[in-house]
Amino acid sequence: MAGCPVSSSDLVSGSAAASAGQNLPGVDAASIGVSLERVRAFIEPRLSQALELSSDAAPRLAESMRYAVLAPGKRLRPALVLWAAEACGGTWETAAGAALAVEMIHAYSLVHDDLPAMDDDDLRRGQPTCHRAFDEATAILCGDALQALAFETLAREMPPATAARGCLVLAKAAGAEALVGGQADDLAAERGWIPDVAASPGADQMRWLEHVHRRKTGALFLAALELGGLSANANEAQLSMLAAYGRAFGLAFQIADDLLDAEGNEAAMGKRVGKDAGRGKLTFPTVVGLEQSRVRGRALAEEAVISVSGLGDSAAKLTALARWIIARDH
Amino acid sequence: MAGCPVSSSDLVSGSAAASAGQNLPGVDAASIGVSLERVRAFIEPRLSQALELSSDAAPRLAESMRYAVLAPGKRLRPALVLWAAEACGGTWETAAGAALAVEMIHAYSLVHDDLPAMDDDDLRRGQPTCHRAFDEATAILCGDALQALAFETLAREMPPATAARGCLVLAKAAGAEALVGGQADDLAAERGWIPDVAASPGADQMRWLEHVHRRKTGALFLAALELGGLSANANEAQLSMLAAYGRAFGLAFQIADDLLDAEGNEAAMGKRVGKDAGRGKLTFPTVVGLEQSRVRGRALAEEAVISVSGLGDSAAKLTALARWIIARDH
Repeated sequence: MAGCPVSSSDLVSGSAAASAGQNLPGVDAASIGVSLERVRAFIEPRLSQALELSSDAAPRLAESMRYAVLAPGKRLRPALVLWAAEACGGTWETAAGAALAVEMIHAYSLVHDDLPAMDDDDLRRGQPTCHRAFDEATAILCGDALQALAFETLAREMPPATAARGCLVLAKAAGAEALVGGQADDLAAERGWIPDVAASPGADQMRWLEHVHRRKTGALFLAALELGGLSANANEAQLSMLAAYGRAFGLAFQIADDLLDAEGNEAAMGKRVGKDAGRGKLTFPTVVGLEQSRVRGRALAEEAVISVSGLGDSAAKLTALARWIIARDH
Repeated sequence: MAGCPVSSSDLVSGSAAASAGQNLPGVDAASIGVSLERVRAFIEPRLSQALELSSDAAPRLAESMRYAVLAPGKRLRPALVLWAAEACGGTWETAAGAALAVEMIHAYSLVHDDLPAMDDDDLRRGQPTCHRAFDEATAILCGDALQALAFETLAREMPPATAARGCLVLAKAAGAEALVGGQADDLAAERGWIPDVAASPGADQMRWLEHVHRRKTGALFLAALELGGLSANANEAQLSMLAAYGRAFGLAFQIADDLLDAEGNEAAMGKRVGKDAGRGKLTFPTVVGLEQSRVRGRALAEEAVISVSGLGDSAAKLTALARWIIARDH
């Protein structure tokens, strides 16, 4: 990962988290940058290998898929899969297929979200978006093929006993009642197809925002944790703890993302910032202000931490990540 | 299905098939219209039920998904799933989940293929295309959500023993090396990204066309047959016969589709015809002529029939369908 700006700034953020987390006992927050780097070193060669397609994949399509997935990323979702498996006594090897699958779904959703007919973005992960680097048709097909590859990878690589359940978990998280539904409602609000949202009282706006983000961003985090647990043959009690963590973590992540969009800088983020406010989009800071958003984010991070306390020391990385996520600068 | 133009013309086509198939002993080709009508009566209420989504699915998105899937269709792919299961001693009930999943993948691929950035079509199944009836963003999300719903349905409803293998079969068929790869290569040729195809000798053009269509159209037919077999716990020998049928059937179907595009009328087809020739696209008739295309189509239909002869009388519907497909008028 030498020369990768995201990894180096992750290490910086590790220090930021250490300072933000210095009142939180039992967490070595400074190590989160190193821990994430280890996940990247494990998962990125496997992502690259999974994207070595045969000549039956059209060359331009195959190239666009590699471009979309292998661009520098934090690999938060694979980290959640691997660390959830670890927290339930499983291995990274057994959880690798699920980690790859979740990252492929994430990458596809970014490619489609960036399309001109959707958010119309030019920059993603510090690079031109897929439809800018290739073309719109290729970007549509790239997303479609990545979604299929996610299920192919999961069905092939998850332990047979849980593979079908794993496909069900991922499919629900990626579907109309979760990821895609959240994105559709987000668009609907932005385009005035649901005109009453922006004009409704703050409490209703908050409920709406949480309703959107629990699906648009949260559902895939939740699936990552469940899939990690399933890969490790976790019992229902463990799965339930991971799910509670995932719900709180996902919302904390989104609040942090909104805060970064409001305050952050483009170079550290690797994508256009200030765009939400620029288009009058509802975000946590625009609804309840920066300070209240920070308070809510920190409370959710602590809720996540408490959720997995029953898993003991093996959940230390999940704990550290939840506290880092709200302190990060990108 | 009262008042549905596709079903009534299917019955007409049954008669056409009867006359075209009168020299083919052992096949009651006239019954194919009735057989397909029974499949529709079985599968369409189940499709409708699978598309009754919770309020977590954005209302406009959910509506677009119902619009795309429940538009009148021949339901050929569900028929192949159910009849393949039947040919291996299975029941329609056990194969229903696979039949729904394959139809959802088919419907999603049509929605995305019709997009302005892709084939830019206004008419599909006799109705405005999804992005015309709704909008482009909704059509993109509709396709994305239908793909996820296909895997959700398959993972939940296939018999547990074969569900993971079923997800793998469907994911490969829907992926970059099959359905999406074929579509990407088709676009690449049309847009001159592969400039040598149109200028190459006829034999090379034929190889290219078959290479595209075995993936773009054929792979999902093949998956339908395999999934039907897997739902019925077919053995490897039976699966292999079904696969051979699927490969021949898929290409015969595409040749027939090209012939209909060259000769057909829009009212019977429910979509724009003559569009392939209009944009200078390679098709079987433009490469080898109408008559040679018909000869090749009939030979492939017979190849399909012979492939499943080892399954005996229980494969009668597959046999009748292969002969009908090349004689149909829509």
